[in-house]
Amino acid sequence: MEYLAEFIGTGILILLGNGVVAGVLLDKSKAQNSGWIVIALGWGMAVMVAVYVVGQISGAHINPAVTLGLASIGDFPWTMVPGYIAAQLAGAVVGAALVYLAYLPHWGETEDADAKLAAFSTSPAIRNPVANFTTEVIGTFVLVLGILGIGANAGAIGGGQIDLAALFSTGFAPLLVGLLVLSVGLSLGGPTGYAINPARDLGPRIAHTLLPIPGKRDSDWSYAWIPVAAPIVGGVLAALVWRLTGFGG
Amino acid sequence: MEYLAEFIGTGILILLGNGVVAGVLLDKSKAQNSGWIVIALGWGMAVMVAVYVVGQISGAHINPAVTLGLASIGDFPWTMVPGYIAAQLAGAVVGAALVYLAYLPHWGETEDADAKLAAFSTSPAIRNPVANFTTEVIGTFVLVLGILGIGANAGAIGGGQIDLAALFSTGFAPLLVGLLVLSVGLSLGGPTGYAINPARDLGPRIAHTLLPIPGKRDSDWSYAWIPVAAPIVGGVLAALVWRLTGFGG
Amino acid sequence: MEYLAEFIGTGILILLGNGVVAGVLLDKSKAQNSGWIVIALGWGMAVMVAVYVVGQISGAHINPAVTLGLASIGDFPWTMVPGYIAAQLAGAVVGAALVYLAYLPHWGETEDADAKLAAFSTSPAIRNPVANFTTEVIGTFVLVLGILGIGANAGAIGGGQIDLAALFSTGFAPLLVGLLVLSVGLSLGGPTGYAINPARDLGPRIAHTLLPIPGKRDSDWSYAWIPVAAPIVGGVLAALVWRLTGFGG
Amino acid sequence: MEYLAEFIGTGILILLGNGVVAGVLLDKSKAQNSGWIVIALGWGMAVMVAVYVVGQISGAHINPAVTLGLASIGDFPWTMVPGYIAAQLAGAVVGAALVYLAYLPHWGETEDADAKLAAFSTSPAIRNPVANFTTEVIGTFVLVLGILGIGANAGAIGGGQIDLAALFSTGFAPLLVGLLVLSVGLSLGGPTGYAINPARDLGPRIAHTLLPIPGKRDSDWSYAWIPVAAPIVGGVLAALVWRLTGFGG
Repeated sequence: MEYLAEFIGTGILILLGNGVVAGVLLDKSKAQNSGWIVIALGWGMAVMVAVYVVGQISGAHINPAVTLGLASIGDFPWTMVPGYIAAQLAGAVVGAALVYLAYLPHWGETEDADAKLAAFSTSPAIRNPVANFTTEVIGTFVLVLGILGIGANAGAIGGGQIDLAALFSTGFAPLLVGLLVLSVGLSLGGPTGYAINPARDLGPRIAHTLLPIPGKRDSDWSYAWIPVAAPIVGGVLAALVWRLTGFGG
Repeated sequence: MEYLAEFIGTGILILLGNGVVAGVLLDKSKAQNSGWIVIALGWGMAVMVAVYVVGQISGAHINPAVTLGLASIGDFPWTMVPGYIAAQLAGAVVGAALVYLAYLPHWGETEDADAKLAAFSTSPAIRNPVANFTTEVIGTFVLVLGILGIGANAGAIGGGQIDLAALFSTGFAPLLVGLLVLSVGLSLGGPTGYAINPARDLGPRIAHTLLPIPGKRDSDWSYAWIPVAAPIVGGVLAALVWRLTGFGG
Repeated sequence: MEYLAEFIGTGILILLGNGVVAGVLLDKSKAQNSGWIVIALGWGMAVMVAVYVVGQISGAHINPAVTLGLASIGDFPWTMVPGYIAAQLAGAVVGAALVYLAYLPHWGETEDADAKLAAFSTSPAIRNPVANFTTEVIGTFVLVLGILGIGANAGAIGGGQIDLAALFSTGFAPLLVGLLVLSVGLSLGGPTGYAINPARDLGPRIAHTLLPIPGKRDSDWSYAWIPVAAPIVGGVLAALVWRLTGFGG
Repeated sequence: MEYLAEFIGTGILILLGNGVVAGVLLDKSKAQNSGWIVIALGWGMAVMVAVYVVGQISGAHINPAVTLGLASIGDFPWTMVPGYIAAQLAGAVVGAALVYLAYLPHWGETEDADAKLAAFSTSPAIRNPVANFTTEVIGTFVLVLGILGIGANAGAIGGGQIDLAALFSTGFAPLLVGLLVLSVGLSLGGPTGYAINPARDLGPRIAHTLLPIPGKRDSDWSYAWIPVAAPIVGGVLAALVWRLTGFGG
């Protein structure tokens, strides 16, 4: 049931998250050109909704960087890592396909092929692998550190171990995690569009490659490794720093 | 008393929800052209206010798609369904009439008859019945799944059954449902203006037909069936999927 | 101490509320032209801050329409009404003077005398006394109904009587009331700028008349009675309707 | 451990807070020109995240004006003041350096040297030392009064003394403080860019002087004393007024 929850949770995340990008960028959308506040708030609320729906079942990682970060400090069993990541990736592909469906008549109306790709996966504002990698590491570092801080605040850390399913099974922690993602997006999203989640970027990129999108460009696979690798580095780093500080007790 | 609550709740929803559309679209309004963030946040907060006022009495369905979704899985008695829907529809007509009153001098100042209709009922950005239907199904699916998830989180689900009046009688669940509607609006509202509620669209469309709005266009009745039928399909589908997953215990 | 609390609370409300209008409208302000979302959110958060600071002492009416609404249904003693209203009005004058100070060099830089008045008191988008009165009645009706609903939800209503000081002495009700004002502003502020509070409009109008604002226009006293009288009507009406529905138990 | 918490907390504050300014002002950023709502919300959420991460350890002052305000009324030991302020300042320098890294390729692409300085420290919209000082006093006064009010509401004040670490060790007070900063920013940020925190301005100004930013201007040291001195005055004043009112019990 945890794997199903990760699949559905990541699907909702991408449906609502990529949905807001599609709404802002695609031609004739009623939300067209409504700007960064809409995108950042849309992604933050997408996280909140996904976590409310599946958080109490699986802990709503919905992000391999969270799964690997927790596993790296012993707060999540390594045996469940492959299943979680596979479910997240599959959910992200399906979520992206649902965005494709929800905005079906808009792809053909939109000339800008970069905008159409942006409704699937991220791309850097200025292409510079080292800098882009660094930006994604910093963003994911703040994300995972923030989740651990929210968990400590909510008493979901016992004996130093965090239990996300307990954290999200009651109360407003899912809202707080949504606002945390809003914060990271507003503040650190400018250079790379803040993937901060390997599944969020890779799943939709696969969907972009597979789906019959009218007038699409290539899926920019040469960039794809950065939003996969950098968030993992950032997430693991945050978990280790958190453990080192001893803030979690 | 539940029927009165649904009437008042849906009235508040439409007064505040259609009010924000009027504010953004009508000429000389101080909120004119303030964009999608204002519309989506306005609708989200409209839901929150309506649910705080009547939630503890009737569960604040204020949406036939919610009422039918819950009834379809046995969480709301079928005998009360007709009364709930009638009250919701009547409340929506009255709410739209109050928006007409609140913005009284602005209708005559506004030339764009489409904008005036938009302050009552939804219309698609690109007219395509199958696609528009699909978009409304997906949006309402997320809405109802989200409500059930928030309910499970708040412990308002016992023996697998959700009790919205209990969910909304204390705490911040009404705020969360408002933010859920904000999320759906930001992310999935671009193609059709997210009715996601048969009463929200049909009631104001009736009001648009009846009210003496200066320079109004026809009420686009050929589109009216989609924002009625599609949300019902989406709401029932979400309730069934929720039951199938077993996430509600 | 309650009177001091109403004085300080209304002062904070106007400092932050009129402050955001000054920030958006005055020339050279870093917030200039940042739009309706900033104004509506700024007023909502202004209410929240004011209520957190003084709510547990006086119930943070900070609005004669609330004081009179509650008194009219017996939930606030008539003997304290004059003191509350006097304190609110005095606080509003002082709050407006603090905005004058905070934005001191900007008044001279701003040519538009209407914008300078707008940073003090409200004016209608389309001047029409009956319509403007109606809009302010509707807005304040929703405000006071919403406060009563939030109070019922939070269990601050016992024996049918609401106790705002209890409501605001712990928890997130002050935030909810702030979001309620955000909602009213977003949705019903377009025609008249939503005074929905006699002190909020009259106090700053007095300050505008008295303060040495460079290049100021007259204080539009012919309009001043509407944002005083209409909110009182709306607030009392809401309290009566609430009592009639029996939603408060 | 408290000092480390202040260091990390202020680092997160500046990384996210200055990050949003960089995102809005630097050329080619995806958030460019997204306006005051993004800046004010970005700073508010930055505070929230920082407080969730370190609040339960150190009380998350992350602001010498808070530390000195509390010390001035006996609610924080003077012996810890130097260490807190040093940690805050060091954290602010490091946070600013992380913003430099996160937006690395954008500094060279941006011609406007004032914009680049603005992503580090504040500057007045209209240069007028007395007025700018006054604005920063008023803003910080509201900030500290608001924190004390939130603390009283949350029951974190016992025997008249506030305990921020207790306030922030559970619940939603960190979110409320973030919204308080959002409010101050929206409403009182227009004239000076609301430093309201000596470390927030001085630390990044030092970083601006030291870092090899392409095409940078001087660091405007002649203004630097105002956002250091005025917030201290405002914070201490607020603490004294709070104590005088007796609102804290």
